[in-house]
Amino acid sequence: MPKRRVYLDYNATAPLRAEARDAMVAAFDLVGNPSSVHTEGRAAKGLIERARGQIAAAFGAEGADVIFTSGATEAAALACAGRGLHGSGIEHDAVGAWVDDSLAVDADGRVTVTDPANSVLQAANSETGVVQDLPQGLAVVDATQAFGKLPVAFNWMGCEMALISAHKLGGPKGIGALVVRRGTDIAAQLRGGGQEMGRRAGTENVAAIAGFGAAAEAAARDLADGVWERVAGFRKILEKGIEAGSKETILVGKAVGRLPNTCCFVTPGWKGETQVMTMDLAGFAVSAGSACSSGKVRASKVLTAMGYDEGQAACAMRVSLGPDTREEDVLRFVDVWLDKMERHRARSAA
Amino acid sequence: MPKRRVYLDYNATAPLRAEARDAMVAAFDLVGNPSSVHTEGRAAKGLIERARGQIAAAFGAEGADVIFTSGATEAAALACAGRGLHGSGIEHDAVGAWVDDSLAVDADGRVTVTDPANSVLQAANSETGVVQDLPQGLAVVDATQAFGKLPVAFNWMGCEMALISAHKLGGPKGIGALVVRRGTDIAAQLRGGGQEMGRRAGTENVAAIAGFGAAAEAAARDLADGVWERVAGFRKILEKGIEAGSKETILVGKAVGRLPNTCCFVTPGWKGETQVMTMDLAGFAVSAGSACSSGKVRASKVLTAMGYDEGQAACAMRVSLGPDTREEDVLRFVDVWLDKMERHRARSAA
Repeated sequence: MPKRRVYLDYNATAPLRAEARDAMVAAFDLVGNPSSVHTEGRAAKGLIERARGQIAAAFGAEGADVIFTSGATEAAALACAGRGLHGSGIEHDAVGAWVDDSLAVDADGRVTVTDPANSVLQAANSETGVVQDLPQGLAVVDATQAFGKLPVAFNWMGCEMALISAHKLGGPKGIGALVVRRGTDIAAQLRGGGQEMGRRAGTENVAAIAGFGAAAEAAARDLADGVWERVAGFRKILEKGIEAGSKETILVGKAVGRLPNTCCFVTPGWKGETQVMTMDLAGFAVSAGSACSSGKVRASKVLTAMGYDEGQAACAMRVSLGPDTREEDVLRFVDVWLDKMERHRARSAA
Repeated sequence: MPKRRVYLDYNATAPLRAEARDAMVAAFDLVGNPSSVHTEGRAAKGLIERARGQIAAAFGAEGADVIFTSGATEAAALACAGRGLHGSGIEHDAVGAWVDDSLAVDADGRVTVTDPANSVLQAANSETGVVQDLPQGLAVVDATQAFGKLPVAFNWMGCEMALISAHKLGGPKGIGALVVRRGTDIAAQLRGGGQEMGRRAGTENVAAIAGFGAAAEAAARDLADGVWERVAGFRKILEKGIEAGSKETILVGKAVGRLPNTCCFVTPGWKGETQVMTMDLAGFAVSAGSACSSGKVRASKVLTAMGYDEGQAACAMRVSLGPDTREEDVLRFVDVWLDKMERHRARSAA
């Protein structure tokens, strides 16, 4: 009998939460266009506003504006394009496309911001999990990976705008938001209908918005219930197992604060892509970097920005756990990974 | 017992087809990010490619590239922004935002194109249903309303690009596509991950894409089965009833080819918004213009571009039928509308 697949790639995308699924299926029965003034239109509009409230509450953004977009990538373009903002080499490509990489990154992956009002900074890194100390007054915070896994709140961060994504916290793919301090000027990039207070045209993705709201609420509850402390415990087991069995493996960012679920490790001489394919055949879904660029076989630019050389950066592996991860999954992962690593070493030495 | 609501606003958004709903619910169980190289990622990628094929087949776009976007609004921006294209005053606002309105519109709503290679033209109008004779070689065709209701095919239209939307043909909201002749150069507006062959970054909306594919296939089957001929018959009943009961009502675009489901009529002295609210209270969902701008109380710019004066254009009503519309719905609509119209006239005369 084939063993159950073990999904350890939550930072790429999280499984859809039951609450989000139910909210979407319920929304499928509402026929109206939220811009229509009739009963059906108003019902659809009501669903959107309910979700907007759920997300504002979960993200500590009461009183701020939540502008729905097709995902964090679109939110990044809306927040950053054409503003000449400063960024660092460890930002996600969706942010990096619009900013420079002038901000210094240290060996632990921490960024020094000199001009917050003209800078963008991620709250946590998708590959390493390294969490930043966010200075007050940032132009843009990329909270995509932090929201739902850490107790972050827009109103405490003191930034002008923040990006969030539904599918990283168990909501559907294809929906995200730009959260902005009320009164912030935003020039629409998608134009036409006057949706989202003229800031983002296009018929609203009603079902996905409802799913995002439900997922955000469930994620906030998980956080309050200590789910991520349990996950952090499993991550500790994972890292102890790897350190004990493979002396030359480097745990990236281990000295600093990280997301509770993310483990990034470099095993010199064993390519990340090879590790991913080997572990996939053995039943584990993991990643060699951010999913968006994982189709391309290349060294992680996050790691090279931290000072790792190209050879090391090409040998990175990311394991990211989630609320559904079990202790046995992690123990089995360690066993199998160490076994494959030793086989690889034996082959290389032969 | 309250009577069943009658939805006659298909051009604003169509009810979700059962096939689309089932495809989306099935997709909810696939956890992977389509950019991930592991088994889960490849399964999600497979779903996207299957839908891409379904849409290409339904839209007669075999061999063309289907680039998924968050809807036709985003597809319009991707196709039109910064190109200085010519358009007419009857284009949807999502297109009109990026083009001039230099192309002449006649009293029947037909547009004359002088320079196809630098022009955009809709295949059919959302408010009036008027269908255009598309010259070969257009830069962009907005096929949003025509796709699924008329036998249009990208490969016959001879244009460079075309916009389509899922929710107008019974797919989910929040997904559309820009269809382009293979080899056409497109500069991505959303940047970051290399999704959609580098033309549109952002984690793919897997479930919505699957729903779009299923809906497009079902819509093509409906077309082949003659469903829209039945709908056109109901529209004829509707228009005969209105003409017989209200001599001063003008049926817009009746002399030319129209979508089989759309009826737009002007009743001087009775505001479209008032008609919509009156009919809503009586159990019918209809519209006073395109949904995207129907939040605003203003005259239809489509009708003023056709030469109607502001007073007439403010008194327009759009009824748009669909595959689920029944003959009894239409007969009841005519009865109720005529009754309300006479009451309005009596009040105005008092």
